[in-house]
Amino acid sequence: MAAETVTAAVEEMKLENGGEKDVSKDDVVTPWDVSSSSATGVDYNKLIDKFGCRTLTADLVERIERLTGKPAHVFLRRGMFFAHRDLTAILDRIEQKKPFYLYTGRGASSGSLHLGHIIPFIFTKWLQDMFDAPLVVQLTDDEKFIWKGMTVEQAKKMAIENIKDIIAVGFSPDQTFIFNNFDYMCPPFYENIVKVWKCVTNNQARAIFGYSGEDPMGKSAFPAVECAPCFASSFPHIFGTKKDIPCLIPCAIDQDPYFRMTRDVAPKLKCPKPSLIFNTFLPALQGAQTKMSSSDPNSCIFISDTPNQIKNKINKYAFSGGQATVEEHKRLGGNCDVDISFQFLSFFMEDDAELERIRKAYTSGEMLTGELKAAAIKEVQRVVADIAERRKNVTDETVEEFRKIHKLKYDF
Amino acid sequence: MAAETVTAAVEEMKLENGGEKDVSKDDVVTPWDVSSSSATGVDYNKLIDKFGCRTLTADLVERIERLTGKPAHVFLRRGMFFAHRDLTAILDRIEQKKPFYLYTGRGASSGSLHLGHIIPFIFTKWLQDMFDAPLVVQLTDDEKFIWKGMTVEQAKKMAIENIKDIIAVGFSPDQTFIFNNFDYMCPPFYENIVKVWKCVTNNQARAIFGYSGEDPMGKSAFPAVECAPCFASSFPHIFGTKKDIPCLIPCAIDQDPYFRMTRDVAPKLKCPKPSLIFNTFLPALQGAQTKMSSSDPNSCIFISDTPNQIKNKINKYAFSGGQATVEEHKRLGGNCDVDISFQFLSFFMEDDAELERIRKAYTSGEMLTGELKAAAIKEVQRVVADIAERRKNVTDETVEEFRKIHKLKYDF
Repeated sequence: MAAETVTAAVEEMKLENGGEKDVSKDDVVTPWDVSSSSATGVDYNKLIDKFGCRTLTADLVERIERLTGKPAHVFLRRGMFFAHRDLTAILDRIEQKKPFYLYTGRGASSGSLHLGHIIPFIFTKWLQDMFDAPLVVQLTDDEKFIWKGMTVEQAKKMAIENIKDIIAVGFSPDQTFIFNNFDYMCPPFYENIVKVWKCVTNNQARAIFGYSGEDPMGKSAFPAVECAPCFASSFPHIFGTKKDIPCLIPCAIDQDPYFRMTRDVAPKLKCPKPSLIFNTFLPALQGAQTKMSSSDPNSCIFISDTPNQIKNKINKYAFSGGQATVEEHKRLGGNCDVDISFQFLSFFMEDDAELERIRKAYTSGEMLTGELKAAAIKEVQRVVADIAERRKNVTDETVEEFRKIHKLKYDF
Repeated sequence: MAAETVTAAVEEMKLENGGEKDVSKDDVVTPWDVSSSSATGVDYNKLIDKFGCRTLTADLVERIERLTGKPAHVFLRRGMFFAHRDLTAILDRIEQKKPFYLYTGRGASSGSLHLGHIIPFIFTKWLQDMFDAPLVVQLTDDEKFIWKGMTVEQAKKMAIENIKDIIAVGFSPDQTFIFNNFDYMCPPFYENIVKVWKCVTNNQARAIFGYSGEDPMGKSAFPAVECAPCFASSFPHIFGTKKDIPCLIPCAIDQDPYFRMTRDVAPKLKCPKPSLIFNTFLPALQGAQTKMSSSDPNSCIFISDTPNQIKNKINKYAFSGGQATVEEHKRLGGNCDVDISFQFLSFFMEDDAELERIRKAYTSGEMLTGELKAAAIKEVQRVVADIAERRKNVTDETVEEFRKIHKLKYDF
């Protein structure tokens, strides 16, 4: 196995101390790039160490189960959500019956979401079901306009299409406000952006986000726009005049730089720090060295893929941990740690016992790659069909129900 | 006389060529600092050369007189508005009966405006009277919040107070929209800001505005907020869907960096470039080495000063071009070029013949400093009384008439 050291170039400098760490060059995890030289993917334990967040321990998962009275979500009990910042502060509030809200988001850069995009939303929906908390979802169409070669209209259109996919995860407009920055921008939101701008120096921002002098200045201005929704006062239509309601952000760990900056800034704004819960990346079909990426359609299962497309993609592209021949496979067994079909099963198969049975059977060589792929195809088809079914009923009018300035069912 | 070279550090690098110029260190003219080593003040001819704008020639003043059928404003015929960019493009449109709009602004950093602040507004009002054009006025309370040690609430309050003084220059809400950024921020405005962010690199912005790595990132994000009102699409309640209406910006020349950047960006946004007309600085009471500055109250005549305060300030502080004794003055004569009372008369006395009579009498030594000061006091009292009289009737409700999102009397 290759050395499992983690490079997180943009992470090297902490706001607090400005120091640099000696990190080597294997894994790269930034808001714009995720890759690993290892077939088992990013080493998340090392990432926890480098980013300075905490492991989501079995204790915490049990505490969540006690609070909900239900088994933890698959993503929790199998470690897909593997790390956090200040999650306990939110769990304390739940215990004390004090309010919090959920905040997550999406930078729309493809017409249809893929399964990797959907992971935080599936988990966010589960958290909302368990704790009945308001949710705000930010579509960073402004970010995509700045970073990518698209027009404002294209960026906004993509955001609207992505909102449809997000809604199809199962959200309800009386619990959820979904907004794209270009259309939501308003005085309370802007005020928090400007406050963040005032608290962070250009040097600090450059150290966190790694932009250069040749980058457009929007790249340095934007991060505050992703930070601002961490403050309840950005949403007076939801929280009224309350400013002391903290948020919990379920997101992929590559978004951590934005929120580390926010957590540093929050006390200066006399606002609570956001708490975070981080998921691992859903691996690309080709292997865990990279995450699914819309820019390579063959690396992804899209929400819009038909059952047949899903079947063909997994059969054709899903990296196999099996041996070269049936005979060798039966003799040596398969490697579930690098097998993408097995990774998909781990994300989506509810039945722990059945997953364990498959793991053993494939590892021993008893189960062949074709069978494993068939099981993965079935589970992925089920998850996508579930979303696709709801997606059919999502119209432009539905989108407006979520996007309009509206009060949620919660009183603050 | 000291060497009259002009340092305009932030101006050295042009967007177009990125080159640096060899300038020496006497005059400093930036959006944040204006000073000169010469008692006659900034050398504006050199500034025109360095900034790359054009002299406002007698030909142009005559063309304006032909267009209006009236004598040019004192500020035009005496060279207080001394330079421009593309003014002819606006004059062409006036000839062709095509619309344009006026845009000016103010960074509110004191409770009451002083005469120096009022100069561009007096001239803007004259332009509006002559050409009946819509006017938008930006109060950059966000800028002041970022740059100064004040809260958002203080910055907004100061903006509202400044709006009252601006209204008192004589504007009407059916021709004028006045906004502070914190309260106006909205999708069409933000969209133009993001477009500017995308078109200018961090290096270019740093070269133009001179901020450093230790500065808050708001200093790099803000300039686009001053640029955006140059585009009619920032104000759909005034211009509807029209995007091709250019603006003319009357302002002090220190604001030029913002608009040079805007003019560079405009073609990329497929928008017309803003035209500009620049005024010189009203000198501080202590002498033309600096401009009036609210941070030194004794350097300024405020709109809120009583007639008696005006009298005392000019008598006590106005730098005199007279000689040490009456005898010497009568023998050698006074120097109008450095005399601040005479400068004030030049700005505010309507009667060209009387001004010339005073100039000659003071230069010859026939008129004494006391008499010259008395004449200046009378003119300044008149101008301030005129504004103060209107200011009495400006209430919070009046401010709302200008600030609310409202259609002006113009159809687009």
